[in-house]
Amino acid sequence: MTAALCPGSFDPPTNGHVDVINRCLSIFDRVVVGVVHNPSKSPLFSAEQRVAMLREVFAGVPNLEIESFEGLLVDFADKHGVDVIVKGLRAVTDFDYELQMAQMNFTLAGVDTLFVATNPAYGYLSSSLVKEVVRLGGSVDGMVPAPVAAAIKERLDS
Amino acid sequence: MTAALCPGSFDPPTNGHVDVINRCLSIFDRVVVGVVHNPSKSPLFSAEQRVAMLREVFAGVPNLEIESFEGLLVDFADKHGVDVIVKGLRAVTDFDYELQMAQMNFTLAGVDTLFVATNPAYGYLSSSLVKEVVRLGGSVDGMVPAPVAAAIKERLDS
Amino acid sequence: MTAALCPGSFDPPTNGHVDVINRCLSIFDRVVVGVVHNPSKSPLFSAEQRVAMLREVFAGVPNLEIESFEGLLVDFADKHGVDVIVKGLRAVTDFDYELQMAQMNFTLAGVDTLFVATNPAYGYLSSSLVKEVVRLGGSVDGMVPAPVAAAIKERLDS
Amino acid sequence: MTAALCPGSFDPPTNGHVDVINRCLSIFDRVVVGVVHNPSKSPLFSAEQRVAMLREVFAGVPNLEIESFEGLLVDFADKHGVDVIVKGLRAVTDFDYELQMAQMNFTLAGVDTLFVATNPAYGYLSSSLVKEVVRLGGSVDGMVPAPVAAAIKERLDS
Amino acid sequence: MTAALCPGSFDPPTNGHVDVINRCLSIFDRVVVGVVHNPSKSPLFSAEQRVAMLREVFAGVPNLEIESFEGLLVDFADKHGVDVIVKGLRAVTDFDYELQMAQMNFTLAGVDTLFVATNPAYGYLSSSLVKEVVRLGGSVDGMVPAPVAAAIKERLDS
Amino acid sequence: MTAALCPGSFDPPTNGHVDVINRCLSIFDRVVVGVVHNPSKSPLFSAEQRVAMLREVFAGVPNLEIESFEGLLVDFADKHGVDVIVKGLRAVTDFDYELQMAQMNFTLAGVDTLFVATNPAYGYLSSSLVKEVVRLGGSVDGMVPAPVAAAIKERLDS
Repeated sequence: MTAALCPGSFDPPTNGHVDVINRCLSIFDRVVVGVVHNPSKSPLFSAEQRVAMLREVFAGVPNLEIESFEGLLVDFADKHGVDVIVKGLRAVTDFDYELQMAQMNFTLAGVDTLFVATNPAYGYLSSSLVKEVVRLGGSVDGMVPAPVAAAIKERLDS
Repeated sequence: MTAALCPGSFDPPTNGHVDVINRCLSIFDRVVVGVVHNPSKSPLFSAEQRVAMLREVFAGVPNLEIESFEGLLVDFADKHGVDVIVKGLRAVTDFDYELQMAQMNFTLAGVDTLFVATNPAYGYLSSSLVKEVVRLGGSVDGMVPAPVAAAIKERLDS
Repeated sequence: MTAALCPGSFDPPTNGHVDVINRCLSIFDRVVVGVVHNPSKSPLFSAEQRVAMLREVFAGVPNLEIESFEGLLVDFADKHGVDVIVKGLRAVTDFDYELQMAQMNFTLAGVDTLFVATNPAYGYLSSSLVKEVVRLGGSVDGMVPAPVAAAIKERLDS
Repeated sequence: MTAALCPGSFDPPTNGHVDVINRCLSIFDRVVVGVVHNPSKSPLFSAEQRVAMLREVFAGVPNLEIESFEGLLVDFADKHGVDVIVKGLRAVTDFDYELQMAQMNFTLAGVDTLFVATNPAYGYLSSSLVKEVVRLGGSVDGMVPAPVAAAIKERLDS
Repeated sequence: MTAALCPGSFDPPTNGHVDVINRCLSIFDRVVVGVVHNPSKSPLFSAEQRVAMLREVFAGVPNLEIESFEGLLVDFADKHGVDVIVKGLRAVTDFDYELQMAQMNFTLAGVDTLFVATNPAYGYLSSSLVKEVVRLGGSVDGMVPAPVAAAIKERLDS
Repeated sequence: MTAALCPGSFDPPTNGHVDVINRCLSIFDRVVVGVVHNPSKSPLFSAEQRVAMLREVFAGVPNLEIESFEGLLVDFADKHGVDVIVKGLRAVTDFDYELQMAQMNFTLAGVDTLFVATNPAYGYLSSSLVKEVVRLGGSVDGMVPAPVAAAIKERLDS
């Protein structure tokens, strides 16, 4: 049995994130999604809200756990007994940075990282670009799952 | 007739920007320069000042409009009836980011983006590097057009 | 009026090539497709066959010329009176090579090159990969236009 | 249970290949190594020799199969019932090419590809560089497994 | 006699920095390490502390000077009579940025920059990643020299 | 005293090569140019001709040796007592390949490699592109030194 960990900020989750998690679900026996809770940053949505949105999107999906974490990723990976970290890659600049993180995590705890290329249809999508489009008054339908679109709208109306 | 849109922050305009706009003028029938006005950022020069500097540099040039805009680039493109967006590329890391923006803009409004490689002689030039050199007391003659150099000097003396 | 030149080997034309030409047709007033005839190479299809396939794909499309050429690209560009060369880019390694060619062509004849990012849906497609799939017995339906798929089948059956 | 396929030419296998296979063995439940037999190329070692060298290196390792194959990789993946393809990446230019192959294989058969970064200690190693060093009279001890070093020596002495 | 300048923020110095300086010492006759003092940034360690840590690490090493500087790098290079700037490169994205800086420095003062590839064993190391690991409670032993590890511990305990 | 080795095929030498050698001459105390003689390739000019062309270009320049070599670069470096290898870099894809060679040479013999960015004005120039332009009937004046242009012309007329 092989378990994979998909870590990220997911602020907010995009259809690109959903695609990577779905592909992990079709490859691995168990998938853990780790939502980074970084107290020194000011996210659009709290870690609890991001976990709740992901749980709504993947409601009823078996062999999937969605949790937030603080501290080192490798400690979270160890606690959840995963065999490998999986990260989506959109671009060459992603690759440089993610490679550096992967080597750091291997050095810290001997845990390996596998990379999966983002579905080209979602290659342009990032959480920060989604937030920018919303800020400028554009529509993000088709870029984020329906529960996320609803949560964004609710935030803007309040 | 083909109209191209050259968007950017131009804070301040550099000789690299001027080169890209000149090359668009020699290729396309009409060129619109769109100066991004982002209220959430603190630019060195206001959008009005950046538009004024560019208009002084290109004074008397036909088939060229220089305007500032807020909001989505694709809305500005639509309002000005351009056929295509043109962006200068200096480096591979530029390419990754600009490709993401191009796919986003195509998704939002079906408008295409063409890339033009920066003249190698200006490949090192960016607005932020120009500001850094000025901050450290270096000369930016030959890096920015004369009216821009004058405006920078005036700002520092005030 | 702005005329663009789309050069390439097109051995064979793929849906990625067709996409780039279609986008140029929607941007520019006139488009010239230049099919490279390189006597020192052994293509799968002759230059005449490649021109014929492209003309069948784009039959009836106005403001489009499809011709083969030998010699320097910049001489062909000059002969056809185009304003600019347009090349599709799929990846960062494409960019490095194409940038070198663009600088060479600008040095030789002062003609500029614009780059357009390949539609992500066709990002994996190249003529050489199509030929490899055919050689290994795979189907290239959906990767090449129908007339090209027919021509490939005919070649293999003979 | 998750099964991974490690494809390659392995002409000859290097310590970088061995490292990638070992990391897959520690992550996945079952690993299949697919040695490409391409009749149109002239490898240094035949597919049979390359399979034999790898089998000697991994003698006694459970849950590992080493086979050669002709034709499409996705057909070999399907025949062996693997869940995913895993490829080692050394550099950015690898990434561009491997991404293209991954998208092609997903398009052909819906099979996904995961990438693993080569151990930096072996980042400089490639089969072709090993052959070049041998050709120029250098030592490849520490670059290839002992059985491969012996096989190379034997070939050169004959 | 050839003198090289190794500039950087060194906040804090890592084993990757130490490796680059050691390699310069084995190549060049004289090495100057320039520690950037940027009053508009809030470093973890002051420029004095960073200079002191580096001097402790390289205590007794001949032909090596370690100094902090404000202002333009090219002015510091000129003042110390160096022949060339040497920068470590870890990744392709480093290369793009460092190339831009190198062209700027050549334009400002005619001083050349040479690049040295970081030892792959330290390829994942950056000062900011070291600070992040410390912030998250991880150990940075083996990532920074002993005097730096002690200084970090002292800072956290105070 | 610091000695640098500039290796290459130089088939033919371009103005980009000349620029890199000149910059090494201004940085280092002694420069050795190593012209690769690879018996398994068919160069346009023999190793002797390439050495002769470079010696003509650099006639009278002190502290410069120009020699051809077979075998491992590190053996040639050792024989000539150089402290470091210096390679010009034009692009990101160059960097990936040259980094691999640098790590191999360090592994083989502990000799380091420094990289110097090609003058942007010559960034498009490569020996193979020069040969291609000549083959297609274009002029390479301004791309190669005068003695090389003469040698190319002589070869074509014969």
